[in-house]
Amino acid sequence: MHKYKLILSYDGTNYSGFQVQKNASSIQQLLEQALQTILRIATPVWGAGRTDAGVHALGQVVHFIFSSSIDQKKLLASLNGLLPEDIRVLSIEAVAAAFHARYSALSKVYRYHCHLGAVHDPFKLAYAYHIPYPIDLALLKKAIPHFVGTRDFTSFAHEALKGSAAKNPCKTIYRLDCVEEENGFRLEFEADGFLYKMVRNIVSTLLSIGSNKLCIDEIPNIFRSRDRRMVPATAPPHGLFLVRVNYPEIDSGCIQKE
Amino acid sequence: MHKYKLILSYDGTNYSGFQVQKNASSIQQLLEQALQTILRIATPVWGAGRTDAGVHALGQVVHFIFSSSIDQKKLLASLNGLLPEDIRVLSIEAVAAAFHARYSALSKVYRYHCHLGAVHDPFKLAYAYHIPYPIDLALLKKAIPHFVGTRDFTSFAHEALKGSAAKNPCKTIYRLDCVEEENGFRLEFEADGFLYKMVRNIVSTLLSIGSNKLCIDEIPNIFRSRDRRMVPATAPPHGLFLVRVNYPEIDSGCIQKE
Repeated sequence: MHKYKLILSYDGTNYSGFQVQKNASSIQQLLEQALQTILRIATPVWGAGRTDAGVHALGQVVHFIFSSSIDQKKLLASLNGLLPEDIRVLSIEAVAAAFHARYSALSKVYRYHCHLGAVHDPFKLAYAYHIPYPIDLALLKKAIPHFVGTRDFTSFAHEALKGSAAKNPCKTIYRLDCVEEENGFRLEFEADGFLYKMVRNIVSTLLSIGSNKLCIDEIPNIFRSRDRRMVPATAPPHGLFLVRVNYPEIDSGCIQKE
Repeated sequence: MHKYKLILSYDGTNYSGFQVQKNASSIQQLLEQALQTILRIATPVWGAGRTDAGVHALGQVVHFIFSSSIDQKKLLASLNGLLPEDIRVLSIEAVAAAFHARYSALSKVYRYHCHLGAVHDPFKLAYAYHIPYPIDLALLKKAIPHFVGTRDFTSFAHEALKGSAAKNPCKTIYRLDCVEEENGFRLEFEADGFLYKMVRNIVSTLLSIGSNKLCIDEIPNIFRSRDRRMVPATAPPHGLFLVRVNYPEIDSGCIQKE
């Protein structure tokens, strides 16, 4: 058996998300269809993480298994020939049998873009959340340390989580940076994992603090409550990008083509 | 009479260009319709320059005349409310009677984005020209001085020019910079004016030089020939942005609302 790791970049605007869904066009489904066309056998792929409808990826990682060795350069060209232009395979490499796109990941990096000012940028309609009211960035930044470290993020997870009792609600955010950009800012998250809609719920909380709708002192209460209803409405998906998935070097390194 | 200067930003992807055309949706037409709805009188606008179908603008300038004084902040909000989201009015200011969006302009700045590499960036499909073959940027940069200064650009003007014998084919390019970007580069032009498709024809010429399809020594012959057929096929419109229009301070300065 041969295992291959793919890095994908896609504009999520026209898709129902990464994961296969009934009656909707997903990235995973289109990729599996293209692989089946090329490899002539049903080829399931495993993604590092799901991205919701409208969420973008600069570096989503997936893996698949195939019975024999593949010419990776040829496969890259064939996949990009079959896939829609807004989904691109950036690289393909052979990986060790132990590699798993999701379970081998050490950390994932997400970025959320906010555009400030009365008028939105016509080139960022699908790529940044437009916030027409003022944001006190100094205040927002003061709240960030409340989210960094290992914490129970139940309050910031979407309701869907309730069904999956097995999932550990404790995650470690290694890094949460607020980076100022032209006419706005981005929030960059690196964590060992994220609960469903966790990034977008932390973003909405930070925006509420930055706009004086929520007091920083309330954050510990929100964490303690373990109640999603304590958190402001989820920020919209189109500002969110899955930037990168990090793996231990031994797992992600390119192995010799056999 | 009161004169107003508007700065517009638009994504040209879905439009037939700036200028009004029969049976096609243009920026000018949509802006004039919105102004007529708000001001309740047919209100023609004059643009600093036309942009072709698929060409974008970060700072297109237009002016219009109205019989009485206008609340500029209100008009900005109303226009952005009526216009499609991919056309935004960034600012409105009252200007002196002598101001003309096109004839008062000292210079215009255009930018052309090229994306290099085997795989295009899915976020730049409509905003950068994908060049999958290698470009020798050092060679391309060597050719740039041939285009800077006051020259007869007839060879780089589109055929449509032939009809308009009155137009002076001599233009002055003040600045032509090649700026390296992540996975590509941009060519930035500042000139006192541009002939029809002149930027895109200079871009295609520079790309031919950078890919060793055309020799730098040929450039003087191309200029001398005054023959459009000597120049490689026009580069596609979607890499092109009208960045900024510069005016003398006295004309563009905001005047007191009367």
